[in-house]
Amino acid sequence: MTQHTVASFDAELKELQRKIAEMGGIAEKMQSDVIDALMRQDIRLAQAVVAADPALDQLQREIEEKAILTIARRQPMAIDLRDVVATIRIANDLERVGDLVKNIAKRILALEGRFPPQSLLAGLNNMSVMALAQFKAVLDAYIQRDEHAALAVWERDGEIDHLYNSLFRELLTYMMEDPRNIGFCTHLLFSAKNIERIGDHATNVAETVYYLVTGHNLALERPKAEAADVTAPPQA
Amino acid sequence: MTQHTVASFDAELKELQRKIAEMGGIAEKMQSDVIDALMRQDIRLAQAVVAADPALDQLQREIEEKAILTIARRQPMAIDLRDVVATIRIANDLERVGDLVKNIAKRILALEGRFPPQSLLAGLNNMSVMALAQFKAVLDAYIQRDEHAALAVWERDGEIDHLYNSLFRELLTYMMEDPRNIGFCTHLLFSAKNIERIGDHATNVAETVYYLVTGHNLALERPKAEAADVTAPPQA
Repeated sequence: MTQHTVASFDAELKELQRKIAEMGGIAEKMQSDVIDALMRQDIRLAQAVVAADPALDQLQREIEEKAILTIARRQPMAIDLRDVVATIRIANDLERVGDLVKNIAKRILALEGRFPPQSLLAGLNNMSVMALAQFKAVLDAYIQRDEHAALAVWERDGEIDHLYNSLFRELLTYMMEDPRNIGFCTHLLFSAKNIERIGDHATNVAETVYYLVTGHNLALERPKAEAADVTAPPQA
Repeated sequence: MTQHTVASFDAELKELQRKIAEMGGIAEKMQSDVIDALMRQDIRLAQAVVAADPALDQLQREIEEKAILTIARRQPMAIDLRDVVATIRIANDLERVGDLVKNIAKRILALEGRFPPQSLLAGLNNMSVMALAQFKAVLDAYIQRDEHAALAVWERDGEIDHLYNSLFRELLTYMMEDPRNIGFCTHLLFSAKNIERIGDHATNVAETVYYLVTGHNLALERPKAEAADVTAPPQA
């Protein structure tokens, strides 16, 4: 690349990274707001979370378009190319996290003020706190270009899965105790699954950061507790 | 582009499209096999579906890598650029369809031969058949570069959502009738949700095909029945 091209490339990459940071900020706030909305059954806050999501969709589209144009115009190679590709991948994951959080917010609205038992909410809260921590850690790893921090996030994914498994069993027990619990428990079940999937996206981003810094792919199979995919219900 | 570059670009694009077709074939077979496995509680077939998934992951990775290199090397513009970007997007959707189908197959394994009632299976079967039809139609639209066919797929997504909503209510009714049903109904609930999401990916591909052919994005909001996101349970 000529010096001029290098400068243009750097400016375009910075702009892409700025948009990723913007997406990260919105997605983090949505995640933290949806936990608050759930714990307090705050309908307005849940509505605000739903309303925040289109901004993520828009940013994801912009990042993809600009990244592709940058690749076509600047023909970056090696680390530069991985840098641009990473923005496409991470934007994709952040957009999907937004969808999952939005879906939880909609379920809070669907609960219509019926308050689930405190122990179930506490279980969801624990999962959410851990997922949000993973999410923040992996965005930090991205900014710092820290493949070790990314690897640590990747290895911790199993912990969210364990929380999910135990909450899942607790939810089924509630459902079995009283059919009147089945309705809201179903919403909580899907919410828990969504949080577990947010954790998976943090793991995806960790893989992207690792690839970005090292040029290598992490092992194809994850260290996650396989069972979390299809947690077996307790026998009735 | 020089004549030589054009020829190289065309060859690379063809290779990408060949890989997309390969992914489409695998994903279609997985979908059709998982329906059979579910209806017949065929454990071996469910295991075969799980085993088929890594090939999709591998192809997705290859397509992304090759597409990015093609953009960097050939600097395609306008329709040519959209053509390459489309392969990245569609590969992404096909990979996720594979994950969803694999998850259903794992749930069949988790049922351990306990046969759900025929009417519930019939409901899942109807959804699957419709999702598979959508999926085939949109891959056809891609091959034919037919934006009208893509639009038709996009508009039909609401039908799967309607089937999902009615199956969802039926599943909850079963759960409420007898707590012993809750375990397998939960697996069927998540399976139904997965099929609904396969339908969403067909809609994504429809949007990609429309964009590829016309250069325009379909409206940001989908015509889908919003309620399918968070179907409200019947009141107990």
